[in-house]
Amino acid sequence: MKEKTKNQSEAMEMDKLKFQITKPSEEMQAVAKRKIDMKTKPLGSLGRLEDLAVQACMVQNTLTPNLQNKAAFVFAADHGIAEEGVSAFPQEVTKQMVLNFINKGAAINVLCEHNGIDISVIDMGVKGELAPFEELISSKINHGTKSFARTSAMHPGEAEKAIKAGSKIFRMKTKSKPIDMIGLGEMGIANTTSATAIISCITRKPVDECTGRGTGIDDQGLAHKIEVIQKALEYHKPDCTDAIDILSKVGGYEIAGMTGAALEAASSGCIVVLDGLISTAAGLLAYLINPNVREYFVSGHKSIEKGHIAALETLDLKPVLDLDFRLGEGTGAALTMNIVDAACKVMCNMASFEEAGVSNKSS
Amino acid sequence: MKEKTKNQSEAMEMDKLKFQITKPSEEMQAVAKRKIDMKTKPLGSLGRLEDLAVQACMVQNTLTPNLQNKAAFVFAADHGIAEEGVSAFPQEVTKQMVLNFINKGAAINVLCEHNGIDISVIDMGVKGELAPFEELISSKINHGTKSFARTSAMHPGEAEKAIKAGSKIFRMKTKSKPIDMIGLGEMGIANTTSATAIISCITRKPVDECTGRGTGIDDQGLAHKIEVIQKALEYHKPDCTDAIDILSKVGGYEIAGMTGAALEAASSGCIVVLDGLISTAAGLLAYLINPNVREYFVSGHKSIEKGHIAALETLDLKPVLDLDFRLGEGTGAALTMNIVDAACKVMCNMASFEEAGVSNKSS
Repeated sequence: MKEKTKNQSEAMEMDKLKFQITKPSEEMQAVAKRKIDMKTKPLGSLGRLEDLAVQACMVQNTLTPNLQNKAAFVFAADHGIAEEGVSAFPQEVTKQMVLNFINKGAAINVLCEHNGIDISVIDMGVKGELAPFEELISSKINHGTKSFARTSAMHPGEAEKAIKAGSKIFRMKTKSKPIDMIGLGEMGIANTTSATAIISCITRKPVDECTGRGTGIDDQGLAHKIEVIQKALEYHKPDCTDAIDILSKVGGYEIAGMTGAALEAASSGCIVVLDGLISTAAGLLAYLINPNVREYFVSGHKSIEKGHIAALETLDLKPVLDLDFRLGEGTGAALTMNIVDAACKVMCNMASFEEAGVSNKSS
Repeated sequence: MKEKTKNQSEAMEMDKLKFQITKPSEEMQAVAKRKIDMKTKPLGSLGRLEDLAVQACMVQNTLTPNLQNKAAFVFAADHGIAEEGVSAFPQEVTKQMVLNFINKGAAINVLCEHNGIDISVIDMGVKGELAPFEELISSKINHGTKSFARTSAMHPGEAEKAIKAGSKIFRMKTKSKPIDMIGLGEMGIANTTSATAIISCITRKPVDECTGRGTGIDDQGLAHKIEVIQKALEYHKPDCTDAIDILSKVGGYEIAGMTGAALEAASSGCIVVLDGLISTAAGLLAYLINPNVREYFVSGHKSIEKGHIAALETLDLKPVLDLDFRLGEGTGAALTMNIVDAACKVMCNMASFEEAGVSNKSS
């Protein structure tokens, strides 16, 4: 009923992408903070770990949060914009890397195995055919987007379909095994170009302040990448408050998939660990659809991509790690998930001053 | 023979504290770097993780480093300087916290359990008697140091004995189970005062630029702490190149224990993960005794204590984590050990471009 007063695009979005996300209670925040303050340590001396522990209490609405079940979702898709020469790697690498994920040879495989994280690889729109593998979830919307330097990256209906697919995959996975914390990762040659366009649009920051070198382009390549994004945003003029409009004009299928997975995970009371530039762009899109999703986000690491900082500012998130990563796949998220889990264990298993018979601060 | 030309204190040190520490080969560094550059990821895109992987190769002199066996050593001792009112907590807390470690209720217990790290608790000089516990290694040099505001903290012979004890404990522990990576932690009310004095002395930085709030003193307490340290350094005038002289004048038994453990661990080809202010002060002392030890160090986290930055600059180390910790016990080291282990697994288990059939950079 209320939607009648809003513009058409918003109405469509509100109607077709409903996600019920509870805003975590501030009461639980206060109680959780009180609990951690009574642990045997100087007040606040575990810094960010304490904030993460309190956030987990809020998200799970309990003083004994549990993040035992960890999952990483790696969404893959190709980008037509790769044709404009914006990446240091050839487009075929997307498909090759998906096969590498399946064969457990990539960085994300090693880090997930190391930290006890289940990994799911999802084909959202890789160019060409991938043989069916048990380890691969096929959810191909199309064989890569179109080049947004020439036309819209995808049809608005495809953007919506891809978000819903991401959401559905999360629901499907939780049926076989519960998920307490999800890490979002991706693979898609040229997807920093798409993510940068999305971030520049939503944060209203100039393109040149948001654009980085991706997998490693040189100065000339960087200038070209900036020009391609600037021209595309001027041409398409996406509505910076409308996730579907942005995705359809300059987005990617894997980015839409992450957006849907983030929204569905949050609506299930699951912590969502973002990775670097691309997954944080997806986080911004999810935030446009339902701002409550932000309360479920943890920023896994600080990317060296410039646009990442702008995106994090808008989401008011501070990264847990700063290790000069710029790989994607969910690698920063995978390392951070171990730390968020540690935070929960501190909340659950550390003794209080009273339990341990330790004297509290004298002053 | 050569020692004859050096001063008496140095001669004593060289004679009585011999640690054979191999300087890791630069050849292995180059080979390891080449190996990680061929992994299926953009060049250098795993940032600090790649540096840690290369360091582990150098320390273990292999291209397949293994950090499976992780141990944390928590050295505890009391400090006479606590009598001068430099800490927010009463002195009895040292002993109470040792009991908390034994009962597995402290932050370090939770984080070690979480990351599969064996924990050893060592009484180097806690005031009062601790009943014998299976989990506690007793190596008490004395019942706390004397207040270095009034006299030397300990006898030079005690400093040497404490270093040797730390070294012996490492050797003893490796006999029952090999250790590939050690994290150094501590407990001792007022030990940031001792560590700050050590750091200010070795780094030649003014005391006020090295002094922080420890467990949480107020502005007045901070000004008092600075004054106490300044006066003590002016009075004792420790030789800033002589670890034994510094330790005996303003040190602590647990700091000496960590110094010995670090030197012994490095001489066994073991990675040494430092924690915050106190363990990094011990790292500086170890560096005075044998500069090669530095190549085995990883700085676990950035403490919010000001002196920590000065110490890290002198050691040319960059912390892995920056989570606003100021707890000690080895908590920052325990989280970082998981990341260093992950780095080794990246080196060992990730596929190369050739193995995975992935195209390398086009440009």
